[in-house]
Amino acid sequence: MIAALATVSETVPAAQLARRLFADLFARTEHSPGVTRIAYGDGEQAAFGLVADAARSIGAEIAFDPAGNQFLTLPGVDRSRRIVIASHLDSVPHGGNFDGAAGVIMGVAAQAWLVGEGRRPPFDLTVGCLRAEESCWFPHSYIGSKTALGVLDPAVLDKVVRSDTGRSLAAHMAELGFDPDGVRRGGRSLDPSKIVAYIEPHIEQAPLLLSDGLPVGVVTGIRGSFRYRHIRNTGAYAHSGAMPHHLRQDSVLASARLVVAAEALWTRLEAEGHDLTITFGQAMTDAAQHSFSKVAGEMQLCLDVRSQSRDTLALVERLLAEEARQIAKDTGTTFELGEESGSEPAVMAQGLVEFALESCVRAGIATRTMASGAGHDAATFALAGVPSLMLFIRNANGSHNPDEHMDFADFDAALAVVCDMLCQSAERWRGAGEARR
Amino acid sequence: MIAALATVSETVPAAQLARRLFADLFARTEHSPGVTRIAYGDGEQAAFGLVADAARSIGAEIAFDPAGNQFLTLPGVDRSRRIVIASHLDSVPHGGNFDGAAGVIMGVAAQAWLVGEGRRPPFDLTVGCLRAEESCWFPHSYIGSKTALGVLDPAVLDKVVRSDTGRSLAAHMAELGFDPDGVRRGGRSLDPSKIVAYIEPHIEQAPLLLSDGLPVGVVTGIRGSFRYRHIRNTGAYAHSGAMPHHLRQDSVLASARLVVAAEALWTRLEAEGHDLTITFGQAMTDAAQHSFSKVAGEMQLCLDVRSQSRDTLALVERLLAEEARQIAKDTGTTFELGEESGSEPAVMAQGLVEFALESCVRAGIATRTMASGAGHDAATFALAGVPSLMLFIRNANGSHNPDEHMDFADFDAALAVVCDMLCQSAERWRGAGEARR
Repeated sequence: MIAALATVSETVPAAQLARRLFADLFARTEHSPGVTRIAYGDGEQAAFGLVADAARSIGAEIAFDPAGNQFLTLPGVDRSRRIVIASHLDSVPHGGNFDGAAGVIMGVAAQAWLVGEGRRPPFDLTVGCLRAEESCWFPHSYIGSKTALGVLDPAVLDKVVRSDTGRSLAAHMAELGFDPDGVRRGGRSLDPSKIVAYIEPHIEQAPLLLSDGLPVGVVTGIRGSFRYRHIRNTGAYAHSGAMPHHLRQDSVLASARLVVAAEALWTRLEAEGHDLTITFGQAMTDAAQHSFSKVAGEMQLCLDVRSQSRDTLALVERLLAEEARQIAKDTGTTFELGEESGSEPAVMAQGLVEFALESCVRAGIATRTMASGAGHDAATFALAGVPSLMLFIRNANGSHNPDEHMDFADFDAALAVVCDMLCQSAERWRGAGEARR
Repeated sequence: MIAALATVSETVPAAQLARRLFADLFARTEHSPGVTRIAYGDGEQAAFGLVADAARSIGAEIAFDPAGNQFLTLPGVDRSRRIVIASHLDSVPHGGNFDGAAGVIMGVAAQAWLVGEGRRPPFDLTVGCLRAEESCWFPHSYIGSKTALGVLDPAVLDKVVRSDTGRSLAAHMAELGFDPDGVRRGGRSLDPSKIVAYIEPHIEQAPLLLSDGLPVGVVTGIRGSFRYRHIRNTGAYAHSGAMPHHLRQDSVLASARLVVAAEALWTRLEAEGHDLTITFGQAMTDAAQHSFSKVAGEMQLCLDVRSQSRDTLALVERLLAEEARQIAKDTGTTFELGEESGSEPAVMAQGLVEFALESCVRAGIATRTMASGAGHDAATFALAGVPSLMLFIRNANGSHNPDEHMDFADFDAALAVVCDMLCQSAERWRGAGEARR
């Protein structure tokens, strides 16, 4: 296989196709600075069309499901099962060109490489273009993968609205000619038992590969989360110069104490070996009432906690609630945590992790294993029992911003790993998937 | 004097006049909930007119100065000098009816009581209606008292604009027919050397009198302040689930640490006997960029620190700047403190404090001495060398809100103290003023 892989360089047609697709995609969805590809909107539609045209030109079959997910399938030796390489094509507003798109384009590039080499994959190779992954548009996780697998809560169709239009997910599906009623009936376009493996290549959203000097990472698990998006501390507005210390009910102080207590908790649990992130990404006093000369009587916070371990999430949730109760008591304020949301941690298939590491060795690509801190559609597949894997590509400047930066050489390295895997036998693939179950 | 004072109850005409003025003022400036009396606007104008009519009806002389401050003077035995009872008549938006107005109305009620009793005050008794005290309208302290004493920085006239109109202080003065050029030339309508005493009755803006069960407080000093209204912490936006702990530059965490450090500093200094308040009244991440799934890369804070002691203010400023530097270093963020503003602490005349305490005893009014945490025009007079005093009236629910609540019985108690003082000899007044110098 080593000989075959050495050809996945920027000089081969598959790599050139990928570069052209990235360039076309940027040109079609540029929204300076960066790109905007709204879920079920123009940008996502344009991206779906571009990759479908590329896949069609190399002989893939194109299909949509009722939710509008798009599947580009290159027939394999055994057509009764499939390998899925997938990701999403929407972006955050003014996001980067690679988040999501790199995974789909890698799938199409792998198909192009196989066709160019005259090889058939051991099973059908389906590139999945999944809808609406960026929850800034529809505030619900993994809409594309959940609809593809028929596990979306039907209530989401009407309850969840797009942030820019205020219109429901169902309305946006129908507007593009898809079938929300079909989604509501829970039909699925992918049968988990027929998927040999789900692979999602994605740019890394943290700088670990960058700081370690590695082009590719093999993901062992996706952190789950719990979130309180609307924590409210209520104290009492009072004159900043007149209200004595002991009579204050200061919401800024109470909120600050919670943030500092959470940071101390994180530091302690991390030292004990827990996998964890704790983030208060939004914090604000009420602009309609606050003043430089008032003790603040209200403050809102937004909390996001992630871990690969359900137990760690439960522990942190319990300990933070205790901290909030104690701080509320000490400051004469109250905390309302508000509605909770979140996602389950998802473990990647151990057999696929080992398979990918082997392919890295064969392709001469330096790598490491790592957690995914961000959620991805791979979590839905893993939780549905599909042997799943993510490959991370080195990326600078994080994601969800116009400055994200992936070197094409690193994309080619990950493509070499994927192509090496696709050159392996049906037996190797089955073994990798079964090792997890 | 005791006999005379026993008559200042709700049954006497002076107290009834005060009640009627409060009711009329509320009716004329109601802006549900509460009242709105914009500085140099309709509400303040209406208030000036109402109290002028009342003062005129009892024989006071009416005068305006170039800035539009209004002086209602009841002739005294010695017309070469004057006692000034003054406060402001503007309010914050949706404020309460008593903040400011109680002081002016008390002055007019005292004049009415003297006239009703057939007494002449030892010196001219001037009730001052000072302009624009609430800095929510023009963000500059003590415009009314500074213009009356000719100490307003002339640049303020053009530089400082009203928050609702964006037009300058000079433009608003001119619009009402006053003389900003006269103000610019630094003329003064009140000569500090001719003021025997300045007295500003005001509702208490904290609940100390309420918690102590006292109707009236005698103020020993007005806290000065330093303020940083636009502190900005800059970190780096990053993915909340992916960015590892040790690589974060979290502005919410850095800001929270500063708030908690300031609280600890306050607790320590207070235990050491420092007079102090520290308030972060506004705190907000950037709504255009923050997200529940991002580490916050920016946060703004607003800091207000007050003390009766210049030295304490300087100490706190130095220690907080050190804390900010250390926190910035520890969190990989930066703090920009931004523009500083503030006011000088002002000490009330010790002789007037003792004089007022004596009158409380004679009038049978329970009292205590206390600091004023809020700034008041009395600070300008004190800093100009005028023997100055503030009397606080018990008040529930703070000020700057529609729920502030002063019992009329407490107003009457303070009025009894003022009337008792006005019944004392010219010698007693001179002695009280000289005791300070």
